[in-house]
Amino acid sequence: MYFASDNWAGAHPAIAARLVEEAAGFAAPYGVSDLDKQVEARFSEVFERDVSVFFVATGTAANSLALASVGRPGGVIFCHSEAHVTADECGAPEFLTSGNRLHTVPGANGRMNPKALEAAIARFPSQAVHQGRATAVTLTQSTEVGTVYSLEEIAAISAIAKAHDLPLHMDGARFANALVRLGVTPAEMTWKRGVDMLSFGGTKNGCWCAEAIVFFNRDLAADMAFLRKRSAQLFSKTRFISAQLDAYLKDDLWLSMAKNANAMAERLAAGLGSLNSARLAWAAEANEVFAILPEERAAAAEAAGARFYRWEVPRETPDLLDDGETLIRLVTSFASTKDDVDAFLAICSG
Amino acid sequence: MYFASDNWAGAHPAIAARLVEEAAGFAAPYGVSDLDKQVEARFSEVFERDVSVFFVATGTAANSLALASVGRPGGVIFCHSEAHVTADECGAPEFLTSGNRLHTVPGANGRMNPKALEAAIARFPSQAVHQGRATAVTLTQSTEVGTVYSLEEIAAISAIAKAHDLPLHMDGARFANALVRLGVTPAEMTWKRGVDMLSFGGTKNGCWCAEAIVFFNRDLAADMAFLRKRSAQLFSKTRFISAQLDAYLKDDLWLSMAKNANAMAERLAAGLGSLNSARLAWAAEANEVFAILPEERAAAAEAAGARFYRWEVPRETPDLLDDGETLIRLVTSFASTKDDVDAFLAICSG
Amino acid sequence: MYFASDNWAGAHPAIAARLVEEAAGFAAPYGVSDLDKQVEARFSEVFERDVSVFFVATGTAANSLALASVGRPGGVIFCHSEAHVTADECGAPEFLTSGNRLHTVPGANGRMNPKALEAAIARFPSQAVHQGRATAVTLTQSTEVGTVYSLEEIAAISAIAKAHDLPLHMDGARFANALVRLGVTPAEMTWKRGVDMLSFGGTKNGCWCAEAIVFFNRDLAADMAFLRKRSAQLFSKTRFISAQLDAYLKDDLWLSMAKNANAMAERLAAGLGSLNSARLAWAAEANEVFAILPEERAAAAEAAGARFYRWEVPRETPDLLDDGETLIRLVTSFASTKDDVDAFLAICSG
Amino acid sequence: MYFASDNWAGAHPAIAARLVEEAAGFAAPYGVSDLDKQVEARFSEVFERDVSVFFVATGTAANSLALASVGRPGGVIFCHSEAHVTADECGAPEFLTSGNRLHTVPGANGRMNPKALEAAIARFPSQAVHQGRATAVTLTQSTEVGTVYSLEEIAAISAIAKAHDLPLHMDGARFANALVRLGVTPAEMTWKRGVDMLSFGGTKNGCWCAEAIVFFNRDLAADMAFLRKRSAQLFSKTRFISAQLDAYLKDDLWLSMAKNANAMAERLAAGLGSLNSARLAWAAEANEVFAILPEERAAAAEAAGARFYRWEVPRETPDLLDDGETLIRLVTSFASTKDDVDAFLAICSG
Repeated sequence: MYFASDNWAGAHPAIAARLVEEAAGFAAPYGVSDLDKQVEARFSEVFERDVSVFFVATGTAANSLALASVGRPGGVIFCHSEAHVTADECGAPEFLTSGNRLHTVPGANGRMNPKALEAAIARFPSQAVHQGRATAVTLTQSTEVGTVYSLEEIAAISAIAKAHDLPLHMDGARFANALVRLGVTPAEMTWKRGVDMLSFGGTKNGCWCAEAIVFFNRDLAADMAFLRKRSAQLFSKTRFISAQLDAYLKDDLWLSMAKNANAMAERLAAGLGSLNSARLAWAAEANEVFAILPEERAAAAEAAGARFYRWEVPRETPDLLDDGETLIRLVTSFASTKDDVDAFLAICSG
Repeated sequence: MYFASDNWAGAHPAIAARLVEEAAGFAAPYGVSDLDKQVEARFSEVFERDVSVFFVATGTAANSLALASVGRPGGVIFCHSEAHVTADECGAPEFLTSGNRLHTVPGANGRMNPKALEAAIARFPSQAVHQGRATAVTLTQSTEVGTVYSLEEIAAISAIAKAHDLPLHMDGARFANALVRLGVTPAEMTWKRGVDMLSFGGTKNGCWCAEAIVFFNRDLAADMAFLRKRSAQLFSKTRFISAQLDAYLKDDLWLSMAKNANAMAERLAAGLGSLNSARLAWAAEANEVFAILPEERAAAAEAAGARFYRWEVPRETPDLLDDGETLIRLVTSFASTKDDVDAFLAICSG
Repeated sequence: MYFASDNWAGAHPAIAARLVEEAAGFAAPYGVSDLDKQVEARFSEVFERDVSVFFVATGTAANSLALASVGRPGGVIFCHSEAHVTADECGAPEFLTSGNRLHTVPGANGRMNPKALEAAIARFPSQAVHQGRATAVTLTQSTEVGTVYSLEEIAAISAIAKAHDLPLHMDGARFANALVRLGVTPAEMTWKRGVDMLSFGGTKNGCWCAEAIVFFNRDLAADMAFLRKRSAQLFSKTRFISAQLDAYLKDDLWLSMAKNANAMAERLAAGLGSLNSARLAWAAEANEVFAILPEERAAAAEAAGARFYRWEVPRETPDLLDDGETLIRLVTSFASTKDDVDAFLAICSG
Repeated sequence: MYFASDNWAGAHPAIAARLVEEAAGFAAPYGVSDLDKQVEARFSEVFERDVSVFFVATGTAANSLALASVGRPGGVIFCHSEAHVTADECGAPEFLTSGNRLHTVPGANGRMNPKALEAAIARFPSQAVHQGRATAVTLTQSTEVGTVYSLEEIAAISAIAKAHDLPLHMDGARFANALVRLGVTPAEMTWKRGVDMLSFGGTKNGCWCAEAIVFFNRDLAADMAFLRKRSAQLFSKTRFISAQLDAYLKDDLWLSMAKNANAMAERLAAGLGSLNSARLAWAAEANEVFAILPEERAAAAEAAGARFYRWEVPRETPDLLDDGETLIRLVTSFASTKDDVDAFLAICSG
């Protein structure tokens, strides 16, 4: 009953096997081996467009360096108030952009409200040196609270960004989960809706360590090779990332894994929703379920070995809980099983 | 005949196998799993002292963050003029220390000259705000030119650093190669000679990606957890690093691999030294051989498929080459074989 | 009718004269002349405690470097949501602290609400590497909206900061205006209430350019000399700052100037408060008056040559204005006169 | 006998008077007052070209921000090994460029050797991510050792910079001294020889505090307004800088002051050169004289109240001194007098 996070899971056997396959032999380091180039080309196929791809060590690096690639002195980046970049990255975006600021934008269920975004940007007229200047917008898909932007919602955010000449970044730490939820193509969920840069996450979805920055607008990547090296993010044996991604993208393994994660989350959500002793805090649209339980029920689940996090009540819904209740987050992954889900539900149903 | 660099090799089978073994199951992320803790404890055993260990993505990160942990505004770090930190890291140390400066110190064969170090430090009296202030000394073991500091030489550098209250860092990207060369213990080559922090490199010696910062002086690690996270260097699935290092340190695998690399370098050096058509630029003491060849011989080797780098003549020995000669660097690894070495020698002997 | 800001005024004649007096002769640069030392000693007298004083070029520099002196990797600084550091300094605090973050805290009338501060700090448990860690609290006295913290209110903020081991900084760009409002001593308004560092502003109150960082907790100043130089803030001819401050602090000139500014603000406030055509947005407690006027009245005042800023409605009071109304800010200074005030009131009264 | 530095002098009476004249009245802050604009226009006249001008607090700020305006991730800046940016600015250029590196170039008498510059740049091929990439060249005119580049020498440096697409910056902390030495126009010594950006220094030549960054290539100034504000270098009462520069540039006051400084240096040099007990270390071409004295003579001068610095022997001329000799630096200014010079010579002649 491991629902603490999708990064508690290990690696899919096919990915581990592909890695072993690459263990022998010699190859050029620093991203120029044949395999590296094949995987880069594969990204262009997957996204139906010539893209520039840069592997980095962590999702935080992907987000921070993507934003740094469009950073400017006095820059201000707009994100949701629950966004990972502002809530969970220890100031890495600020540090790696040499001091750009994250300006939070409210919005229900983890999605930026377009009007609130418009109003926020309006506070930074382009020549106002004192306030700083707008430099980028970033959204997370699927969001930090397990919801998913529809294509129309992405387009609405994108339209605002474009109207202000701001590049649009997508934090795709759980990109595949959103993709299979919407049942659309990678292109449709990104550049066809105006996304310029993507943090493409593989780690949470069955890789050991595979994060990439994908530039749809390749002009924005002009400095990235130096930004990455200067940030100590250029792996020498890059083929160990490439090998993972090769297996990840092969035969839609990545989508299969995301489908399992989402299905298990749906099963969890359906089960919890049908109990008297629990309810969903909001809709679970990807692989994260936020549920409200009586405190003693949550404690019982923990005592039985279930792993999950107590979650802070979002500022926008301060009255979410009744007395004696607690908010918990449950995350599923490629490795989650029906048995685990059902065992958890059994405990919660008491 | 892959002698371009030790990072052209892949992973040792035992390391790849250990990684696969960890693929299944669930474990806490961010460095707190049982395996992570076991490997940390293993480091304390290996170094015969309680140490603090931090995994990072690259050797550049290990060096830069170790130096950042002792960095100060206006700080000046002393290193050899050929040091990797100043020659090959794209300003990452400067960036990740928020602007500390690397001050180069000369010395024959890649080793800092102690008198030159003393003189360099003396240029920075502690209250002289204009020049900046001395903050650290870093040496590379084995060095960038394939030589090795003796224990006495390390102690001499260390004594100067200590006399000025400067922490001493060792860049150990090729730590194991130096260790087996000297035939001493890890403790003898580090903290027993006054080293405070070590970049412990596993990647060049048979891992996929395994770099760690080891603090012998644990007080210096006070900020490291935040420094690492802020630099986007905190892996989520840390057990994939731990698993590699578990296998690496088990049954002295790391030393065996370094012994093979050094032996192959020795074979190369001995072979080249006995030829009329080649000579060694200086002694090969670890797993790198710098040789001087007639240009046509080097070109012939390349044409035959040998991979190596032409190398810039060190500034301290401008007259190293005669007309028509070229300086090349040959690097061996755990995966180098006698057959490869002998094939290369055969080409060079014409 | 210059009410746009107190930095539209020039220098008090006594300050200009003192500067001229110092024009001749020679003196040691970089803060070590006799005059520099006398003025530093004068600060210790004024604050009834041995303090460390560092001159810098701007209030933004004073704030940013004070915060940098206590900055840490992943650091989070707590300030009011209208604070100058977050609203008007173009990311200088983030940049000069190498990426620390400003976390805003709400509170009525420009003053941080202590409960909200407590709640904000609680979101950053000390070992939580992902969120970053609390490093400092900063308050502005007098505030950005022309109000003043009482001594008790400062003590309440200070108690919270101390309970979390956080240094407390005061942005005193308009320090003198608050002091004369409260009628207390500099010591009572600062270190006797737990303030550790002060940005002491002279520029807005009759100097050309005189800003100082004052450390009551001198331990926090350990790195400041290097921080200042590294930020290119160390003037060579420091006596031109010292001379200004020498005159500023002599015979309570600074307090006289602040008294005039406050009295003129009070006159403005009283006058506007008595009109049918205007009302105060909130109490004017120092030298800034925020008033609500019919739009046509504001436009008429501008047409008549009055200079002031239209002000954004604070987020905490979204319903401040009725239709057709506008919020304006009026700032007075040492150079404001009754004639100017009365002329402005005459226009507003129609 | 104040020869320690030109920043020991105060302000010229005409500059002090002009400042007082501006003390009264009100003016828009942050560089947009009428006077600010007039002075900016005056710069365009002086340089015979439309230039962009940015006032900053210190010469270090001018240098660092000029270099930051063309800085890039992994950037490398080429300067002479004695350059102020590398020797005396406490890492401010590295910090304010977010980690760009200064690469020193040798050359006799404080002037970069063009061949050495060419060779240094060649070490950084544009796509070599490991080494970093060349981003700018900076030279100091007059140099740190009191010499002056001829127009031809500036053109030679500029040609190399242009051949590599590198912007050329001139550190003109002692710009006027070089100008009057060469007897050329400001345009001839800057953009007509390929200089793109100038740190225009007024402080050492009779101002209190007046430093400006002048962009001849105005495209390079695109980010400067934000760079300056983010670095806390935007004065509010900018007219106090403008007023100084207004007087400085009026009726060639700046050139008159530099002529006096140079003449006094020449008198010092001629006098010392004619003594048996002293000799010049190298030619004095501007307002700095480097002389070699018997140690006891230097001590006697100090005992008699003369102020000057003992100077470190340049690395390029290690054998400059005989036993018992010392190298001293003497700097003259607008305020130096024949009497002072002659009094000093009298002491030295014994």
